[in-house]
Amino acid sequence: MEQFSPTLPLLSDEELDPRARAVFDDIRATRNTDFINNFWRALAHDPANLERTWGELKEIMGPGTALDPLVKELIYVAVSTVNNCTYCVRSHTAAARGKGATDEQIAELHGIVAAANKTNRLAIGLQVPVDDAFL
Amino acid sequence: MEQFSPTLPLLSDEELDPRARAVFDDIRATRNTDFINNFWRALAHDPANLERTWGELKEIMGPGTALDPLVKELIYVAVSTVNNCTYCVRSHTAAARGKGATDEQIAELHGIVAAANKTNRLAIGLQVPVDDAFL
Amino acid sequence: MEQFSPTLPLLSDEELDPRARAVFDDIRATRNTDFINNFWRALAHDPANLERTWGELKEIMGPGTALDPLVKELIYVAVSTVNNCTYCVRSHTAAARGKGATDEQIAELHGIVAAANKTNRLAIGLQVPVDDAFL
Amino acid sequence: MEQFSPTLPLLSDEELDPRARAVFDDIRATRNTDFINNFWRALAHDPANLERTWGELKEIMGPGTALDPLVKELIYVAVSTVNNCTYCVRSHTAAARGKGATDEQIAELHGIVAAANKTNRLAIGLQVPVDDAFL
Amino acid sequence: MEQFSPTLPLLSDEELDPRARAVFDDIRATRNTDFINNFWRALAHDPANLERTWGELKEIMGPGTALDPLVKELIYVAVSTVNNCTYCVRSHTAAARGKGATDEQIAELHGIVAAANKTNRLAIGLQVPVDDAFL
Amino acid sequence: MEQFSPTLPLLSDEELDPRARAVFDDIRATRNTDFINNFWRALAHDPANLERTWGELKEIMGPGTALDPLVKELIYVAVSTVNNCTYCVRSHTAAARGKGATDEQIAELHGIVAAANKTNRLAIGLQVPVDDAFL
Repeated sequence: MEQFSPTLPLLSDEELDPRARAVFDDIRATRNTDFINNFWRALAHDPANLERTWGELKEIMGPGTALDPLVKELIYVAVSTVNNCTYCVRSHTAAARGKGATDEQIAELHGIVAAANKTNRLAIGLQVPVDDAFL
Repeated sequence: MEQFSPTLPLLSDEELDPRARAVFDDIRATRNTDFINNFWRALAHDPANLERTWGELKEIMGPGTALDPLVKELIYVAVSTVNNCTYCVRSHTAAARGKGATDEQIAELHGIVAAANKTNRLAIGLQVPVDDAFL
Repeated sequence: MEQFSPTLPLLSDEELDPRARAVFDDIRATRNTDFINNFWRALAHDPANLERTWGELKEIMGPGTALDPLVKELIYVAVSTVNNCTYCVRSHTAAARGKGATDEQIAELHGIVAAANKTNRLAIGLQVPVDDAFL
Repeated sequence: MEQFSPTLPLLSDEELDPRARAVFDDIRATRNTDFINNFWRALAHDPANLERTWGELKEIMGPGTALDPLVKELIYVAVSTVNNCTYCVRSHTAAARGKGATDEQIAELHGIVAAANKTNRLAIGLQVPVDDAFL
Repeated sequence: MEQFSPTLPLLSDEELDPRARAVFDDIRATRNTDFINNFWRALAHDPANLERTWGELKEIMGPGTALDPLVKELIYVAVSTVNNCTYCVRSHTAAARGKGATDEQIAELHGIVAAANKTNRLAIGLQVPVDDAFL
Repeated sequence: MEQFSPTLPLLSDEELDPRARAVFDDIRATRNTDFINNFWRALAHDPANLERTWGELKEIMGPGTALDPLVKELIYVAVSTVNNCTYCVRSHTAAARGKGATDEQIAELHGIVAAANKTNRLAIGLQVPVDDAFL
C-alpha cells in the first residue's frame, strides 16, 4: 500500500554519516539481520538521537532483566496502542511474534488494554478518590 | 491525605440495591477479603455497569489464560500510566505487588513505558511509513 | 481541600485591565450571577485569549443551536473525562446538573465514555480497516 | 481505498466458532441487517471478548435509557475524536446519521469537541485550582 | 496517495455562503496566496466556527507577539505530534519550513518532544510529588 | 500541600548506589546547585535509566543546538500540558522562567497549545484529507 512520505526523507546506507553508520552496524550485529526498518532510517538525520534511542532500546529490551523479553514487547504494544501509533503497533507486534507471542496472547493483550482504558475513564469521570490501602 | 469527593457519592454496603450487593458479594468471595475498594463503590450507582465491569475484570485478569496474571497486571499499570489515571496506577500497582511484582520489575516497567512513549512520538512526528515487513 | 497554586496567579476584580473587566461583566450578565469561576481569573492575564474563549463558549454552549444545551454539556464532560482534566470534569458536571442532568444520566454518560474508550483501543490495537459502508 | 490488513485476520462467517456465531446471529437480529462490520470480524478471534463487548454495546446504546440513543451516539463520536480512532469516528458518525443526526448537528458537535479540548488544555496548563463551588 | 473522504464534504469556492466567503477572502489576503487548504474547506460548513477559528489563528500565530512566529509554529507541531494528528503535523511542519525552520531544527524538535513524552510518563508512573521549589 | 507518596520511595543521597551518586554529582555540577529535584530521586532506583535519562536531557536541553534553550523549554511545557503531567508542567515552567520566560510568554504559550488542541480535534473529527501541497 502506498503511504505518505516521512517528514524527513529516509536515509539509505550510502547517505549515513559515520556516527549513524556505526549505529546501523550495531543494529545489524545485535539483531543478526541485514534489515534496518524505516524508523532508524528516519532517525538517522539526528545521529545523537539515533545513538541514544538505539542504545536505550538495546539496553532495556533484551534478555537478562527482571522482566522477560516477551513481556516487555507486550508492554510496548500496549503503550503503542494507547498512543495510537500505527507504526509502533505494527513493528512491536511483529517483534512480539518474533519472540514467541501467539495469536491468542495478542488477542488477550488487546482485551486487557481495552478493559484498562475503560476502567481508567470510569475512575477519572467518577473522580474516585484513592483508597488509603493503595497509598 | 484529604481528597476531592467523587462525582457521585461512594455507596456504603447499606445503600446498595440487590443487584449491586450480589456483585459486592462476588468480589469479596473471589478476592477472599472483606475489603471493597472505592472504584466499585462509585460504580454501584449503575448496577448494570457494575456487573459488566466486574464480570469483565474477573474473566480476563485471573489465572487460566494465555498470559500470566502478573503480566496482565503489568500491562494494566502500563496503560493506566499512559492515560494518567492516578487511581488506576495506584490500585493496579498494588495488585501487581500482590501478585509478586518486585520493585525492580516496577522500575523496569516504567523504563519501558517511557521508552515506548518516546519512540511512539518519534514515529508519529517523523511520519515514518510502515515497512512492508510489518504488514 | 488545599490545592496547588496556579501557574499564573488568579486575578481579583481589582487587578483586571479594562478589556478583561468587560469580559467579566459579560459573564456576570449572561449567567445572571456575580460568581466568576477560577478558570476565567487565570485566563485574565491574556485579555485577548479571555475574550476569544468566553466569546466562543457563549456562542456555542447556549440555546438556539442544533443540539440541546444539556446535550452539549454532556459532550463537554465526555471530552474532559477522556482528557483527564479534573477542573473541567468538575465544572462541566456542575453545569450539566444546572441544566437538569440527573445522577442517572451522569452515571450512564460515564458508562458510554468508558465503552467508547474500550472499543476505540480495540479498533486501534487490532488495526481494523474501515468498512466501505462507512466511507 | 486500499488499507492495511488488521493485526489478526478478519474472520468470515465460515471461520467462526459456535460462540462467535451466536453473537453474529444476535447482531444481525438486533440490527435487522445481514451486514456485520469489520470490528466484530476482528474481535471474533476472542469469542469471550466478542460476547462481552457486543453485550455491553447492546445494553447501553439502545433505547429505554436515561439518555436518548442519538445523544449517546454523539457522545461516542466525541470520545472517538479525542482518541483519534478513525475507524470509530467513521462507524459511529454513520450510526449517528442512521439515528437522525444532521450535517448541522455533526458540525456543531465538532465545534464543541474542539472548544472543550481547547479549554481543557488551558485549565491544565494554567493549573487552575477547582473552585469550592464545584466540589 | 488516495485518502478517505472527509466526514463532511470539502466545500468549493462556489458552495460557500457569504460569511464563509468573507473568511476565505481574508485568508487569501492575509497569506497573500490563492491557495486555501482543505482544513478550511471542511470547516466552512459551520461559518461561525470557521470565523472563530481563523480569527483565533490569525490573531495568535502572526508577528507582533511575545513569542517569535517560528517558535509558535514549532509549538504547534509539538502539540500536533503528541495528539497524533497527521493533517496537523504535515500542515504545520510545512508552515514552519515556510517561516525558516531547517531540517536540523525539525529533527531536534522531535528529539525534545520524544524526551518530554518519556519523562512525562516516568513522572506519572512513579507518581513523583511536586517539589516545593516548583510551587 | 500534602501530596501522595511516590510509587517507589524518593532516595536520599545516603541511599544512592555509586552509579546513581555519579549522576547526582553531574546534575549538581551541570546546574551549579546542590538541589536535586524529586524526579531524579524517584528514578534513582534504576541507575541505568537515571543515567540514560539525565544524559539525554543534558545533551538536548542545553546551549549549542539549532534551537534556543528557552524555545526548547517552552516546547517541553507544551508537551507536558498535552500529556497532563502536573509534575512536568510545574518543573519545566520553573525551568523556563529560569531561562528568562516572562508571564506574557507563558500565557501566550498556553493560548497556542489550546488553539492547537482545538484545531487538531477539528482535523481529526472532520477527517480532513492532507492537501498534496503538504506532502
